[in-house]
Amino acid sequence: MDGRVLNTNGQWMARACTVRGLTVRRITIVGDRLEDIKAALEEALAREPDLLLITGGLGPTPDDMTARALAEALGRRLALNEEALEMMKRAYKRLGLPLSPAAEKMAYLPEGATPLENPVGTAPGILIEHGRTRLIALPGVPEEMEAMFREHVEPLLARLVGGLVHYEAYFLAHGVREAAMAKILEELRTKYPGVYVKTHPKAREGRYYLEIYVATVARSASEARKNLEAVITALAEHVASLGGSFLPYKPERE
Amino acid sequence: MDGRVLNTNGQWMARACTVRGLTVRRITIVGDRLEDIKAALEEALAREPDLLLITGGLGPTPDDMTARALAEALGRRLALNEEALEMMKRAYKRLGLPLSPAAEKMAYLPEGATPLENPVGTAPGILIEHGRTRLIALPGVPEEMEAMFREHVEPLLARLVGGLVHYEAYFLAHGVREAAMAKILEELRTKYPGVYVKTHPKAREGRYYLEIYVATVARSASEARKNLEAVITALAEHVASLGGSFLPYKPERE
Repeated sequence: MDGRVLNTNGQWMARACTVRGLTVRRITIVGDRLEDIKAALEEALAREPDLLLITGGLGPTPDDMTARALAEALGRRLALNEEALEMMKRAYKRLGLPLSPAAEKMAYLPEGATPLENPVGTAPGILIEHGRTRLIALPGVPEEMEAMFREHVEPLLARLVGGLVHYEAYFLAHGVREAAMAKILEELRTKYPGVYVKTHPKAREGRYYLEIYVATVARSASEARKNLEAVITALAEHVASLGGSFLPYKPERE
Repeated sequence: MDGRVLNTNGQWMARACTVRGLTVRRITIVGDRLEDIKAALEEALAREPDLLLITGGLGPTPDDMTARALAEALGRRLALNEEALEMMKRAYKRLGLPLSPAAEKMAYLPEGATPLENPVGTAPGILIEHGRTRLIALPGVPEEMEAMFREHVEPLLARLVGGLVHYEAYFLAHGVREAAMAKILEELRTKYPGVYVKTHPKAREGRYYLEIYVATVARSASEARKNLEAVITALAEHVASLGGSFLPYKPERE
């Protein structure tokens, strides 16, 4: 929480969920304080999301306290999970390292949790079903998080969204100010509530322009395309009527 | 919230607050939904922080709803702020642009709010005092946020922390696993509660190493240095005793 580390994990997971049709409602970042982690978990659980993803705090050092915070937030005991310990034994063997007593801390999970295999590092992930919420904790090392997301979270996403598809497109508009887009955006929001349109004012070499992002989630590709095309046509006509240019573009991934 | 944009603003502000001696307790990210923004603001205000920084959602388009969410969260009315309107007139004049009716939306602030001049763009910032909390909303365009942070937030930080200094140092340890650091970290946490030590396991070209970050906030530079030196010496001796290497290093800013 000191701004040394850019939260690329949050962005990566939000992107991975979005392109599979989920709507990400909130990202919360807290530091290594048990009370803060516990409070954030309790508040997130109270919102009863379908999916609650956690990353970080599963390692062997005392600042790694996700499992303990989870246990306290859920009112469960922390106990040695034999399956997690077996996973760790395999991971340490793969790395050619001895399993130290300090490392065994990583096998203490909230009671009733299912450990998730870590194909890259040593700390198992944690899966807990709590009411309608599936809660999944993954390590914070990006390579481990990404590999475990692909292995353990992706199959779940397909079931959660049930065949929804996500479509998106980017455009650049030169020669119009963002304020001149306000009315048409309001109209499009009302007419196509399922289509998300976002304008980002930018400047390059002192020249002002707008980046426009259009996205939708729909039950079929044809429905998604139909909705997007209507919105894109309306935007293009509006920008042209103001004497501006409107062109598709492909953003570089940040 | 779709993972297209990396939250560099949150990191930038957290870093700027940390190096001036503040402790950042939480970062919350929500999308362009009024109910989500309002809920996040209400929860943040309930924690009664000294400072609550908000960025984004101050522009002219309908997805910009920070002022409205703030008004609803605080139970205040949204009203045309004449001072904000004057700031905007100056900003548009500076840019050689006409002030459109749509843009005037940006001058509607919660009653009792103080507008903050935007030296780069057109949307004024918002300052509100609420109980013990100073609440400051800045635009989301990074150049505008950074300029306004320097102008409006930094003078406030100095008063909030009252002369505290922040000291930090980075080290790389090769030849030790993170689990072998658990015990010494626990001891140092107990002995030097004012010193924050964080280990980050990393790998480069298949070689495992630890990045170790040590930081403290103290009333004087000499006190800060004294505490840090004791911790760094203990860490260096511990790593050496395990046959590892321990060297200072300067991280590249991400």
